[in-house]
Amino acid sequence: MKLLEDRIKKDGVVLPGNILKVNSFLNHQIDVSLLDSLAENFKKAFEGVELTKIVTIEASGIAVACAVARAFGNLPVLFAKKHKSAALSDDVYYATVWSHTNSCNYNIVISKDYISSEDKILLVDDFLADGNAMNGLIEIAENAGAKIQGVCVAVEKSFQLGGDSIRKKGIRVESGAVIERMTYNGDIDFKN
Amino acid sequence: MKLLEDRIKKDGVVLPGNILKVNSFLNHQIDVSLLDSLAENFKKAFEGVELTKIVTIEASGIAVACAVARAFGNLPVLFAKKHKSAALSDDVYYATVWSHTNSCNYNIVISKDYISSEDKILLVDDFLADGNAMNGLIEIAENAGAKIQGVCVAVEKSFQLGGDSIRKKGIRVESGAVIERMTYNGDIDFKN
Repeated sequence: MKLLEDRIKKDGVVLPGNILKVNSFLNHQIDVSLLDSLAENFKKAFEGVELTKIVTIEASGIAVACAVARAFGNLPVLFAKKHKSAALSDDVYYATVWSHTNSCNYNIVISKDYISSEDKILLVDDFLADGNAMNGLIEIAENAGAKIQGVCVAVEKSFQLGGDSIRKKGIRVESGAVIERMTYNGDIDFKN
Repeated sequence: MKLLEDRIKKDGVVLPGNILKVNSFLNHQIDVSLLDSLAENFKKAFEGVELTKIVTIEASGIAVACAVARAFGNLPVLFAKKHKSAALSDDVYYATVWSHTNSCNYNIVISKDYISSEDKILLVDDFLADGNAMNGLIEIAENAGAKIQGVCVAVEKSFQLGGDSIRKKGIRVESGAVIERMTYNGDIDFKN
């Protein structure tokens, strides 16, 4: 989506370690109208696909997921919670996710009350890089028996392998902007 | 707001320790159309009040804040981040907040890039009980010199003292539903 690519070019900052800082409109401050435009694009891409729920992960995913849920006619949003302790109760599905930023594993959990084999879900997040968080959501959805209809992310870094690994599982992935290459304090190249 | 009170009566569960579990529409699963109705109410309450930004705290506050931001003509949303380490850089405003749920202190931070003395802000959150998180946001806003135009929360528990303590500071507080009394596995009474 050109609007998002232009915004990344204008306000994104590339930091060491392949980190793209987009704190001014996505990860700290949020431009809701940009997210609404993005959500309309996802709505067109998944026109006619049956969905019961939008599933995401706290915290930055929530704003994107809420915009997508509105575009799809006010579907429920369900967000996986990051769980601090290793002790997990029986009433949740969980997955263990590697955090690149903090160099540690953490658990994400979703209550069994809100996801089941009757659900047809769209997985949504702000970023898709190595795919650790998204693969955690996929694992939870599979354990719950929910049907994954697709993945929507605002920004995909195609030089990291998360997107490809998910597509290889046969899951459709749509991204608002796909970054092919970026250099520290330098250029950002988008796919196409 | 009757719509929210009815939903709390229907789907809320009162747990020991004065905890109201509303995971089916606010804290884990989110009903975006309910939040949009709530946001319209806040818009009416703050009609004519000048605002530059909606400020909240991750994670559950984000969905409410995004709905409010839309209702106020797509204002920017800014969310305070919960900071794990005690080490804080010079480029953030921070406040230390007591977490009742986890019985520990944590820091919330907002980058100095996104809040300043030119801002006129509305503080938004899902819950207002003891007011620990909200008072942290107020502390940050005051340190940044931003003008606090008001506080909007989805659910206020008036038998805890957060709302009163904030009103005593001269800050206007609007709540979607005010719970005066609730009993474990029992009744929930709303104000008015």
